[in-house]
Amino acid sequence: MSKAYRIGLAGLGNVGAGVIRLLEANQDLITRRAGRPIEVVAVSARDRARDRGLNLSNMAWTDDAISLAAHDDIDMVVELIGGADGPALTLARRTLGSGKAFVTANKAMIAHHGLELAKLAEANQAPLRFEAAVAGGIPIIKALSEGAAANRISRVYGLLNGTCNYILTRMETEGLDFADVLAAAQAAGYAEADPSFDVDGIDTAHKLAILAALAFGTTPDFASVATHGIRAIDKMDIEQAASLGFRIKLVGLAEAADGALFQRVHPALVALTHPLAATASALNAVVIEGDPVGRLFLEGRGAGEGPTASAVVADIIDIVRGNPAPAFGMPAAQLAPLPAADPKGRQGRYYLRLTVADRPGVLADLAAALRDHGISIESLIQRPRQSDAMVVMVTHLAGEAQLLASLAQMSAMPSVTGPPVMMHILDL
Amino acid sequence: MSKAYRIGLAGLGNVGAGVIRLLEANQDLITRRAGRPIEVVAVSARDRARDRGLNLSNMAWTDDAISLAAHDDIDMVVELIGGADGPALTLARRTLGSGKAFVTANKAMIAHHGLELAKLAEANQAPLRFEAAVAGGIPIIKALSEGAAANRISRVYGLLNGTCNYILTRMETEGLDFADVLAAAQAAGYAEADPSFDVDGIDTAHKLAILAALAFGTTPDFASVATHGIRAIDKMDIEQAASLGFRIKLVGLAEAADGALFQRVHPALVALTHPLAATASALNAVVIEGDPVGRLFLEGRGAGEGPTASAVVADIIDIVRGNPAPAFGMPAAQLAPLPAADPKGRQGRYYLRLTVADRPGVLADLAAALRDHGISIESLIQRPRQSDAMVVMVTHLAGEAQLLASLAQMSAMPSVTGPPVMMHILDL
Repeated sequence: MSKAYRIGLAGLGNVGAGVIRLLEANQDLITRRAGRPIEVVAVSARDRARDRGLNLSNMAWTDDAISLAAHDDIDMVVELIGGADGPALTLARRTLGSGKAFVTANKAMIAHHGLELAKLAEANQAPLRFEAAVAGGIPIIKALSEGAAANRISRVYGLLNGTCNYILTRMETEGLDFADVLAAAQAAGYAEADPSFDVDGIDTAHKLAILAALAFGTTPDFASVATHGIRAIDKMDIEQAASLGFRIKLVGLAEAADGALFQRVHPALVALTHPLAATASALNAVVIEGDPVGRLFLEGRGAGEGPTASAVVADIIDIVRGNPAPAFGMPAAQLAPLPAADPKGRQGRYYLRLTVADRPGVLADLAAALRDHGISIESLIQRPRQSDAMVVMVTHLAGEAQLLASLAQMSAMPSVTGPPVMMHILDL
Repeated sequence: MSKAYRIGLAGLGNVGAGVIRLLEANQDLITRRAGRPIEVVAVSARDRARDRGLNLSNMAWTDDAISLAAHDDIDMVVELIGGADGPALTLARRTLGSGKAFVTANKAMIAHHGLELAKLAEANQAPLRFEAAVAGGIPIIKALSEGAAANRISRVYGLLNGTCNYILTRMETEGLDFADVLAAAQAAGYAEADPSFDVDGIDTAHKLAILAALAFGTTPDFASVATHGIRAIDKMDIEQAASLGFRIKLVGLAEAADGALFQRVHPALVALTHPLAATASALNAVVIEGDPVGRLFLEGRGAGEGPTASAVVADIIDIVRGNPAPAFGMPAAQLAPLPAADPKGRQGRYYLRLTVADRPGVLADLAAALRDHGISIESLIQRPRQSDAMVVMVTHLAGEAQLLASLAQMSAMPSVTGPPVMMHILDL
């Protein structure tokens, strides 16, 4: 049997502990697949005293994660600290700079610094992998960079944040408000105390920027992702969408066309017949559209100890075997930046919900605001409420610039008594 | 730029022509991803004169596919001839034996001779890949052997034959008989003139045996796949299943448990809420159940020029990059044969349809036949027909041995006037 491959692991939260447990639990199988034994020989975390239910006695402990990069006895550093900058980034730079392999689940860091790290990895012939950074246990990085490598990919989109999907699913199935589900999710440990990264779409945007770079051979461009979260979604919208044959999902969508890159994270209405509509609760799913493969759909558990550890250890095995595929599917120097597409030129159907005064002429005004911008209405529901009325409309295909102009016109009407709600319909 | 990687391609049917077209159409992208240009330098097919819409003028032609293995000028042979034995197998043996890389879409050959070829590949340090052999454009081989490599996989199942799925989908949506849809599919070129491989489940069994080997680290064992096709499916069963909340699909299912391997291809009732139920027409889909990843679901186009060429060229890129992952996800010597599981020990729910004489006591007899073997009925539909009656039952969980015994008892009843129809319910 070959000599053991030696890992230094930084970060012993759920995922870090999960990686150690998985390497132990499936040790025989992993050794058969990797071709040699894999051992965690050194670990680092904030709190040495904490009981994680792990036997760490065979592993060197260091309080200084960054020192792992300089360990002579280590072939690879696995970074599970998190955070775009700070110690995770320093550890990544030092590890790759010293020619050691580096595996991470850190989407924020890869979205912001992926290009720099990929270049550093290549310059030092040090493998870099981040399968666990996107969609947990779904091998989507490998599917894009290897499985679909022959394709010209035009579009990649999906549900990339389990917390948002869990909240939206419970809002729908139990008829609850956003705030109540969020509070319950926080109490159960499914959502962070500060949920902004999840519910404001930032986590999805990090992951989308990584997927887009892999799909289109572009430099990761987090800054150009237009990001909208789910805080403003009312259970009323979920109900109305359902009555129209849709389910509301937080969708990350990236397209490359006409020499420009479009990236958007937004709540969107997904037809119940689309596979993403059935992706419930904490599941993630990704759709790849490529030529000539057509549409590929991948679904699985997007977070949690087990699925994330599965992805981290897949990366470890890949590196131990010696797969030289570049981190972003092509040499970093080949990644070409694309300018951000102007969303105003896009066409789509839209869901609109307006709160209006219940008096004659209001509907005529709304209809005129759409007509003035050449937008026609596909379906309309008006319902009386206590002191006002709710109008829900789905438009036919319309330009985004026209829709926004029409929406601004409506917002300015005195009879429109609340801020209009607009959501995109995912016609894919 | 590095020297071009040189390919000899055997077989210029749809897929072979598609591979040449894809390598041309996406040449720049593929070169960036692979790290060097890829050229088809020699081709072989049966009919040199046939117009395939391809410019073959830069490629050496040979009428003798097997001679490609001995070409000095070739780094890899891509085999798209088909057939478990014959020239494809000879070409595989000679190519790998000479230390050249070998890529194939040939599921029959890999199901029957995969172990021998994997050993030959390793002995000669010659890469062997067959992503296109299973589920067309879905990168399922890579998902099992690399993406899910850290997992103990307990079950892999799915819809692996586009022709069967197409036929079943049209039978359901248009209320047609099997024979009519098959004839239409043959006329449109979606089904072969001799459809046995597809509709009798053999093609699915080939693919299942390959997936099982990858999933469980076992030697491919086509012989132990219990194989049932879709010829006997009546549109009546499709209607009755629908009324009970199910859709009938040809499912290939493999499980490893208690040191035994269970492999079965059979029409099964899939709940409408299961993602496989939504896998329509010529799509394929595969479910992987692993510890700790949980359930992964992959769906895409399972056949045709584009998706198959996508998989073939992904394999080519993988080899050009130098990914040393073994063909079956672990060295061939590590693949452990498992004895076939005894299906009689399985538990499941079953769909039964009986044609019976319309007279008193018949239902009591049927109920007694189930009771005698400890099987209870979950739902029952009885409908009169012209001269007899149809009884459809879904059982509660029951042992397969008991169910078969009960079925034999019913078949022997004089009041049961036609052969009973039994199908498994996929409760996964």
